[in-house]
Amino acid sequence: MDTSFEQSMALFRRASQVIPSGIYGHNAPAMTVPGAFPYFAQRAEGCRYWDVDGREYIDFMCGYGPIYLGYGHAEVNEAVERVQREGDCFNHPTEYTVELAERLVELIEPADWAVFGKNGSDMTSWAVRVAREQTGRKRIAMATHAYHGIAPWCVPGFGGVIPEDRSAFDKFYWNDVESLEALVRERGNELAAIMVTPFHHPAFEDSVLPTPEFVQCLNSIRERYGILLIIDDVRCGFRLDLGGSHRVYGYEPDLICFSKAIANGYALSACVGRESLKVAASKSFLTGSFWDGAASLVAALKTLEIAERENVVGHLERVGNRWVQGLVALGVKYSVPMVASGPAAIPYVRVAEDPSFLKQQAFCSEAAAAGVFLHPHHNWFLCAAHGENEVDEALERLETVLQQADDWLAGL
Amino acid sequence: MDTSFEQSMALFRRASQVIPSGIYGHNAPAMTVPGAFPYFAQRAEGCRYWDVDGREYIDFMCGYGPIYLGYGHAEVNEAVERVQREGDCFNHPTEYTVELAERLVELIEPADWAVFGKNGSDMTSWAVRVAREQTGRKRIAMATHAYHGIAPWCVPGFGGVIPEDRSAFDKFYWNDVESLEALVRERGNELAAIMVTPFHHPAFEDSVLPTPEFVQCLNSIRERYGILLIIDDVRCGFRLDLGGSHRVYGYEPDLICFSKAIANGYALSACVGRESLKVAASKSFLTGSFWDGAASLVAALKTLEIAERENVVGHLERVGNRWVQGLVALGVKYSVPMVASGPAAIPYVRVAEDPSFLKQQAFCSEAAAAGVFLHPHHNWFLCAAHGENEVDEALERLETVLQQADDWLAGL
Repeated sequence: MDTSFEQSMALFRRASQVIPSGIYGHNAPAMTVPGAFPYFAQRAEGCRYWDVDGREYIDFMCGYGPIYLGYGHAEVNEAVERVQREGDCFNHPTEYTVELAERLVELIEPADWAVFGKNGSDMTSWAVRVAREQTGRKRIAMATHAYHGIAPWCVPGFGGVIPEDRSAFDKFYWNDVESLEALVRERGNELAAIMVTPFHHPAFEDSVLPTPEFVQCLNSIRERYGILLIIDDVRCGFRLDLGGSHRVYGYEPDLICFSKAIANGYALSACVGRESLKVAASKSFLTGSFWDGAASLVAALKTLEIAERENVVGHLERVGNRWVQGLVALGVKYSVPMVASGPAAIPYVRVAEDPSFLKQQAFCSEAAAAGVFLHPHHNWFLCAAHGENEVDEALERLETVLQQADDWLAGL
Repeated sequence: MDTSFEQSMALFRRASQVIPSGIYGHNAPAMTVPGAFPYFAQRAEGCRYWDVDGREYIDFMCGYGPIYLGYGHAEVNEAVERVQREGDCFNHPTEYTVELAERLVELIEPADWAVFGKNGSDMTSWAVRVAREQTGRKRIAMATHAYHGIAPWCVPGFGGVIPEDRSAFDKFYWNDVESLEALVRERGNELAAIMVTPFHHPAFEDSVLPTPEFVQCLNSIRERYGILLIIDDVRCGFRLDLGGSHRVYGYEPDLICFSKAIANGYALSACVGRESLKVAASKSFLTGSFWDGAASLVAALKTLEIAERENVVGHLERVGNRWVQGLVALGVKYSVPMVASGPAAIPYVRVAEDPSFLKQQAFCSEAAAAGVFLHPHHNWFLCAAHGENEVDEALERLETVLQQADDWLAGL
């Protein structure tokens, strides 16, 4: 074992005593390559973080999405601290709840209202309820392998899930207009909504952008059958278009769910919807002890202000392209062909011709050892703190890795 | 309309344009007395807050529970700010996740492990899954009118809820051993778990402590049938006993859910459980984008440290008794008899002989006008910042209100 993970391993042993699996969920060691990645973080700044062993990484996961402007963003943190000292969680909302709702309605077409929660799952699960309340229908359709959160109806895996949790949910295949049309022919009158992510970003697979025909089919089903279209923009939101990722691809949604990037790492989620759904939304009770907390709402207001002022979306596309193209070019140069998928701001790059994932795992393990944090099986994220210099520095570190590809590919 | 709520009303009009119901959830105006209470908060300190019209209240709701040490607690906030600047949301957990799990396991018997989320509902819903995974059974029993969160299986009301969401849940009556035994006789072999709050605190009703027979019955069912006992300590946790409210009443739980008070207003929830459930817990996938956020975990560590150091539980009982007894005595003095229920730290006091709630609503409206925030229909909360002086000051303000009871009771 690499002794440079000594502190990570020591903490993991302690964790395993008092936490099921030691580390659970999306950042569980088993999701990456056990033993080859750090397990615990110490501190972070900009687009870099340090693990508990003091090793520094240029980070391309951004906390799995929430870090959008950069870690420890001073302007956001100062706004939060100011509010936090005056009180965060009250008996009532503050003006910030109203201001952020107004801001989202202004930014996002066709949003006429907004509500807030803490997790993406809070909003995707509530959107399902609103669609059912609005239509009087039960069934919800979604793409196979799409991730919509951890409620029993959508959680990956079956631990503790009973058939009743999923009996009113249907699946179709991403970009497969025929499977979607077949489902609607069979159950159109029972379908309350179809939920999709803006593009398809399943774990352990390449990302897939929607075809124009697929988007057109969804919009048309919405029109013809009155089946609501819910966009789960939790993972992509604000990285592709400040007005919502649906604009990039032409979806005409009724409800859109956001979280992750919205407050640069502070816990917040939001659902926005059309005026026609406002009464159904009012009837679908939702609440949470911390949901009107002023600090995370202020973090979102400040994050969106900076995003607009500094054209973060444009920046992410620019540096994302530099990064992805640079990495693919390095792969060509050193005969380790790479496959890139997804939009530049939320890319996924993997080693080609790698059905067992072993090459990709070896590459990402070596990248971590060289100070670049890449996930082998989950899409990556860019943030505003990724400048051209940082991207070039990461590419330099990876050039060293790829130069030695014969070593780490040997025997796979 | 009282012009002193001018700013609240102006904000509410803006809110109604862009938010379903304007204010939704537990702090919706309709839950109190529309027009007689402030709608938006401005700032807070200790056990007081100021609304957006600049009016000051001695607060007995504590943000509906989360405020445990007091609003804007400097020691907690400083610990949070220090961590926040170093990074809050990472690609990995930090040592604070492990430390807090260790702390809870140390504090709480019979806890052997812990997991963390953001909402109480995250944990109650996950506990249901763990119980099903562990037992291989589907059904879950709970008391009528008990509040366990906003997931479709437990949310109050039926907006957007379909029968499938609740088809595997059974109800019994609080403290009614016969209804519980009858349920278990009928469905004992299908029951995975029974979920109860430590005492019964339904809205629009008096609180009811558990009888020893009821607790004994639950413990015995657990023993006899292998039906897990889940304590939903989200609302009460850490106010009655730092080791969990089950200790106060003698429950023998398998899983316990916490949130609210655990981090003095920072968004956090936790579930702890016995060693025998650790594998089932590992198999029940849970995760959230912000769940390993260092700041709220540090807030919890600091909150629990202060709670122990300053014996907050003892303090809450002492000032809670002073407050409740003082208020009841004032009622006697001015011929407005009061009924007190629930434990002193989480009391509920209402005007007696008031089947329509109109007297209670009038009393709480007058109290708000006099600068004391009481909820007419929901239990109240004490915090460490309620000293004897603050309680006495609140009682003085309410004495003025009760002296004039003939005026506000007239015509009801």
